[in-house]
Formats: sequence, structure tokens, C-alpha cells
Amino acid sequence: MALAEHTTKAFDYDLQDLARMIAEMGGLAEKQIVEVIEALTRRDLERARRSVAADAAIDSLQRSIEERAIETIARRQPMAIDLRGVVGVLRISNDLERIGDLAKNIGKRVIALERGDIARRSMRGVRHMASLALVQLRDALDSFARQDLVKAATVRARDEEVDRMYTSMFRELLTYMMEDPGTIASGLHLLFCSKNIERMGDHTTNIAESVQYIVAGYALPNERGRSAVSSMIPIGAGS
Amino acid sequence: MALAEHTTKAFDYDLQDLARMIAEMGGLAEKQIVEVIEALTRRDLERARRSVAADAAIDSLQRSIEERAIETIARRQPMAIDLRGVVGVLRISNDLERIGDLAKNIGKRVIALERGDIARRSMRGVRHMASLALVQLRDALDSFARQDLVKAATVRARDEEVDRMYTSMFRELLTYMMEDPGTIASGLHLLFCSKNIERMGDHTTNIAESVQYIVAGYALPNERGRSAVSSMIPIGAGS
Repeated sequence: MALAEHTTKAFDYDLQDLARMIAEMGGLAEKQIVEVIEALTRRDLERARRSVAADAAIDSLQRSIEERAIETIARRQPMAIDLRGVVGVLRISNDLERIGDLAKNIGKRVIALERGDIARRSMRGVRHMASLALVQLRDALDSFARQDLVKAATVRARDEEVDRMYTSMFRELLTYMMEDPGTIASGLHLLFCSKNIERMGDHTTNIAESVQYIVAGYALPNERGRSAVSSMIPIGAGS
Repeated sequence: MALAEHTTKAFDYDLQDLARMIAEMGGLAEKQIVEVIEALTRRDLERARRSVAADAAIDSLQRSIEERAIETIARRQPMAIDLRGVVGVLRISNDLERIGDLAKNIGKRVIALERGDIARRSMRGVRHMASLALVQLRDALDSFARQDLVKAATVRARDEEVDRMYTSMFRELLTYMMEDPGTIASGLHLLFCSKNIERMGDHTTNIAESVQYIVAGYALPNERGRSAVSSMIPIGAGS
């Protein structure tokens, strides 16, 4: 990663090192998503347990990136314009750590579900959402590695699709739960898993925004009109 | 806020200004929690709408704090030991922004619920959780303002109580939903509201950890219940 306005070659080296660490952390997060979704769909408790344990490596990397970033600011004393690279990396590492946590929580729910029966029809929807979330994460990390503003913008725009899929899952699970109260417990687990995936999408969008901040100095927005709250829930009639 | 090893009086001023902005942001977050819980329990749609709109002020403050913090690092070029104050403030502002978002989401659910019927018995549990979450937030912000390590540790330890209350709410709502499928829709909204409050508790614990980091240099943990102590970052010769 070579920002145009670098002070010293030493700082260049630090930023490249940070970028490498982000790529490593991103790879671990991607792997976690794949693992827990497989564990969920195959009802694989062992795989789920391994994923939960593997989250520690992601957290550890986040702390290393944080230390390295702070060290870089302290030793190099970069100019304001160089700070964007370091601050952006810090933000991305925070979002990746949250994504890892969300994957771990899905793993924990798989363990809680044990071998209980989950409607296969619902699993398809969850897999579909997870696939899109994974593509989004890969594209966001790619946009960071390549400093690709167009790709970052695409990731941001496509988050709407993740939210729509969540709303769809919500309606579907709600219908099943109302039809058969015996499925409420497992339905809730799946609902929370879907919610976690939707939140992974939000953090991935944050990463894309951080890329825009690092590369072009865009203000880091906190508002995006997101957080899918399913408002179209039938209330009233009969309740 | 006066850390012992300050370089200049100017930096002292910057940190105090940041501390003041954190106190302001914290006050807004506290108010949001009170407002949305009132809106939820009284089924007050107008109050809910105002709260959702009020979140913008919290986000705006977060951006200001971020800008000010970055500006401080760039202009003052503080030594490593001073960076803890600025980095800690950045982290706290991020957690406060997330707490504000969670409150806003509760507000959105109140609007989605409209005037539908929610079991009063469940509302008691939600109010109880929210009260504890509010006390925790006030104590965390207080520990920051007073640089009180003991208070910060108390907040961290008490988060367990918030988690227990959430588990209790979950079981209660699950039982009601299974007894009467007609209550599933509103039950889910309440469940998500409870989840949001539980997550507010997590972010509040993060704030307490950041205070420990700022005041005593504890490593910023991403895992609960782990050891601390980060070594001083060497500066000067060799940079």
C-alpha cells in the first residue's frame, strides 16, 4: 500500500506490513464464516467447537495490528495525511474482529442446537445469505488490497441485498414458527444466525467505507440507512 | 483528564477537550436509552420517532471526536505514553456510537410494533434490564471522568448480571411464544430489544476496559477475562 503523500520510506514499510496483517486477518475471518456455515448445515458439532476455539487467533491478530499501528504513529510521527492509512487499518481490524465474533456466535448456536431438527428449507436461505456475505467480505478486502474505490462502492451498494435476504428469512422463519410452535426454539437460533450474517454484512460495508477513507479521504459516515429491522411483521390480527 | 506523563500543556488541553466531548456524547447515549425504553413501555410512537431522529446527533459527535483525536495526534505528535489517552477516547467514542445505534434500533422496533399488544409481564423484564444497563453506562462514563480503576473493574464484573437477565428474558419469551403462537411476532421484537440491551452492556464493558487502558496501560483485550499489561512502547533512538 503506497499512499502518495508519504513522509518516509520507513512509513511505507510500516503501512505495507499493516496491510499484510489485515489480509491475514481477513483470510481467517473468511475461513471462519465458511466453517461455521458448514457446521450449521451439516450439524457438525466438532467443526463448530473448532471454529469457536479458532476465534482466539483472530482476536490475537487484532491486538497485534493495534499495537503495530500505535507503534507506527508513535515512532514515525506521521503527518495528518499519512494518518488515514493507519487509522483506516485500525478501523478495518476492528470490523474484522467483530465479523469473527459473529461467526463464533453462530458456531456456539450450532453447539446449542446439537442434533435437533432444523427445517432443510430454512437452511437453504441461511446458506444463500452466507454466500453473499462471503463474497462481500472478499470484495471488501480486495478493494483494500488494491485501493480500489469502485469495488468499495459496489460493496456498499450491494449491502442492501443482504438486508433484503435477512427480511425474507425473518418472514419465512416467523411463518414456520407460527405454524408449529415446536419449531420455535430452533427457529430462533436460525433467526439469530441470520441476524449475525446480516450484521457481518454491516461490518463488511464499514470496511469498504474505511477503504474510501484511506484512499480518498472520504468522511467516515456512521449513518447508512442500515440495520435491517423487519417492520413488515403482522401484528394485531388474532394476537 | 491529566495523565502524569504529559509532554505539553497544549496536549493537556486537547485531552480535556476530548474528555468533555466524551461526557457530552455519553449523556446523549444515556438519554436515548431512557427515551426508547419509555417509548417501548408506553407504546409512544412519537417519542420513538424523535429518538430515531436524535441518533444523528450522536453520530455527528462521534465524527467530531474522531477528527479532533486525529488532529491531536498529528499536531501534537505525542509520545507513546500520551497516545493511550487519545486512542482510548477513540475507542470509547466508537462504543458510545454503537450504544446509540442499538437504542435507535429499539426505537425502530417500537414504531414497527405500533400499538400491538405486548404482554405487560414481559415489559417488566425489559425495563429491569434497561435500568441495569443504564446504571452500568453511567458508572462506566463516571469511571472515565474520574479515571477510577476500581469503578471500571466493577462495571466489567457486573456485566455478568446483564447477561443473566438476558438469558432469563429469552427463556420467558420463548415460553410465552410456545404457549401462544399469536404472540410470536411481538415476542420476537421484544427478544431483539432485549438482545440490543445485552449488547449495550457489552459495549459499556468495552468502555470500562478502555478506561483501564487509558489510566493504567492494560492491554486492550478482545476476549473477556484475560490478563493485561502492555509494555511501554520504545520511542526516540532508531526511528
